[in-house]
Amino acid sequence: MRLVYLDNAASTRVDERVTEEMIPYFNDKYAVATSVFSYRMGLESKKAIDSARKIIAEKINASSDEIIFTSGETESNNIAILGTSGKNKGKSHIITTKTEHLSVLKTIEKLKEGGFLVSYVPVDKEGFIDCNALKKSIKKETLMVAICHANEEIGTIQNIEKIGKICREKKILFHVDATQTFTKMPIDVEKLNITTLTLSGHTIHGPKGAGALFIKKGTKIDKIMHGGFNEYDLRPGTENVPAIVGFGEAVRISGKDCKKVSVLRDYLIERITNEIPDIKINGPLGKDRLCNNVNISFHHVEGESILLRLDMKGICVSTGSACFSRSLEMSPTMKAIGNNHELSHGSIRFTLSKYTTKEEIDYTVESLKKIIKELRKISPLGK
Amino acid sequence: MRLVYLDNAASTRVDERVTEEMIPYFNDKYAVATSVFSYRMGLESKKAIDSARKIIAEKINASSDEIIFTSGETESNNIAILGTSGKNKGKSHIITTKTEHLSVLKTIEKLKEGGFLVSYVPVDKEGFIDCNALKKSIKKETLMVAICHANEEIGTIQNIEKIGKICREKKILFHVDATQTFTKMPIDVEKLNITTLTLSGHTIHGPKGAGALFIKKGTKIDKIMHGGFNEYDLRPGTENVPAIVGFGEAVRISGKDCKKVSVLRDYLIERITNEIPDIKINGPLGKDRLCNNVNISFHHVEGESILLRLDMKGICVSTGSACFSRSLEMSPTMKAIGNNHELSHGSIRFTLSKYTTKEEIDYTVESLKKIIKELRKISPLGK
Repeated sequence: MRLVYLDNAASTRVDERVTEEMIPYFNDKYAVATSVFSYRMGLESKKAIDSARKIIAEKINASSDEIIFTSGETESNNIAILGTSGKNKGKSHIITTKTEHLSVLKTIEKLKEGGFLVSYVPVDKEGFIDCNALKKSIKKETLMVAICHANEEIGTIQNIEKIGKICREKKILFHVDATQTFTKMPIDVEKLNITTLTLSGHTIHGPKGAGALFIKKGTKIDKIMHGGFNEYDLRPGTENVPAIVGFGEAVRISGKDCKKVSVLRDYLIERITNEIPDIKINGPLGKDRLCNNVNISFHHVEGESILLRLDMKGICVSTGSACFSRSLEMSPTMKAIGNNHELSHGSIRFTLSKYTTKEEIDYTVESLKKIIKELRKISPLGK
Repeated sequence: MRLVYLDNAASTRVDERVTEEMIPYFNDKYAVATSVFSYRMGLESKKAIDSARKIIAEKINASSDEIIFTSGETESNNIAILGTSGKNKGKSHIITTKTEHLSVLKTIEKLKEGGFLVSYVPVDKEGFIDCNALKKSIKKETLMVAICHANEEIGTIQNIEKIGKICREKKILFHVDATQTFTKMPIDVEKLNITTLTLSGHTIHGPKGAGALFIKKGTKIDKIMHGGFNEYDLRPGTENVPAIVGFGEAVRISGKDCKKVSVLRDYLIERITNEIPDIKINGPLGKDRLCNNVNISFHHVEGESILLRLDMKGICVSTGSACFSRSLEMSPTMKAIGNNHELSHGSIRFTLSKYTTKEEIDYTVESLKKIIKELRKISPLGK
């Protein structure tokens, strides 16, 4: 059976050109990059890393020495938040939302246990931050505003330019997780006044295990793991050369697909809206929605049941948040936008990618129509 | 020019069979493992990870749920030390040596800053721990003994069975970094009474970016990064499926090379001892030396000069510790075994691997003889 990937793995298919760039670094150019002071092969590994660093830096208008490589989004968010929390005396207040990635939410909860105050700024029904509330929540102890550029579940793209301006005015740090938007839309860290920016390889058809963190020059920040002097003495451990090379290549070849993907996104939304009754689109429509995200609640049915039936037809989708899909707990994002238990658990997330075709969308909608009809017939949830 | 890898990268050449196992997980089976509750492709990724976990667990006589995957040695050591330090109330003393890996030394220094007491047990001229001193340094506040199974610079293999017994008697945690020994010699965590054991992929012809930590059932330990519920809720972040698969394969195909490598090691030591005057072998000889490690100090010359001349002949070696090779600071291991500044800076580390040949060793010795002769002629360091 042919498989249709419309779940969050859709973006984790590594581009063949990326794999090709990586392979020589496994079996041939395998020297450790820290051997740069030792011999020429170490220097080659170092050069390969620096070249990837430059590609990534230029993409966000940063300089190379403002980029460190990490193992991924989670580690980058942890370094940005934990790393600054101990180095800025007297600053013990953080502003964030309930719609952040788990690695931001949980890291901030950890700081809270340690005595930090946290303000959760409300979001509206489409997931947009209330900028006035954000402004009002700023105190003289405020260390940082931490928000996602775009929400992974419902695709809401925040107005980070506006938030950046507030942070500039009030002289507070601004951490942005751009895992979902990097290479999909322009990001200029200088213009947007970003202090730390999380980037990830595997959401842009690069390899898993490759992440980066932009750290604005002059930021007071500490490492969270201890060891060697790698990555400007901020992230110890042998550099993962093949993964870094692949990450760089994924960024280099990126950038032309978002338009095409967003057309398919709108086509999927339109067909479901027109052909399946009793649904709710979660998140905004149009240009403020992530180009590859569709999230829809189907009244009177469980997301899990839809997912299992779609799987039988070879269609891979996710319920709500991937991270929360294993618990019966309601996703914090769904709660924050005001969805009740039924709407939250009846939600399905479709993630599109540059590999998604119109035929796949058509097949998915046709399958979905039948499945929803059948499930509603047997549903105990009313109707 | 043909390159002879005798530096610490020698063991980082990924076995072709490992790369072959990894590649399908880049472009084909790329689902995220946490989607296990969603659809069959997620389940396949989960199975691939669990299969690697089982291979690694069995190799050290552990059970699968005692193994978590990390990004490498540095992260594993950080989790083992930082993770237990906060969860065992009243335990604020650590016993270690000055000859540990930087990620152990620096993590313990961090705890010291936070109020921990640290006892550094002395080692003898060959790098062996003084077990009586270790025993005497135990207090009722002792949390843990943290030692390397084998020293990466001078190859000394510690008697971890004896140390394990002491820890069992005194009911203290025992952390062992087995990065250098894993798959090269048998490790039975039960018999050796190990609480936490650090393992790494790229030192056994597996991929970079793949490490593991054995954590004995019942150990009180906390995560050091915060986010998702991955890896038994101890290491958040999307699992690096291809790297984990490669790590598992590297372990599966390992195990037959150590004997052959140690014969070449002894041949290299013997030829240098017989054919180059005024040298000192650092570390022990014979069965208590790591099978792939040779470390020799050449009197009256600088290690850096030897290294550069060898590089011109296509031979890659390291000076002392890779991590310290960029600073003029003396390696703590060299200091601990009583080497003076001259002996320390005149030391060269040769790392052999299953790919090393007798011809390469012969070419290296012949080149070395000429280089040492020339350098001693122009050396300001006497002779």
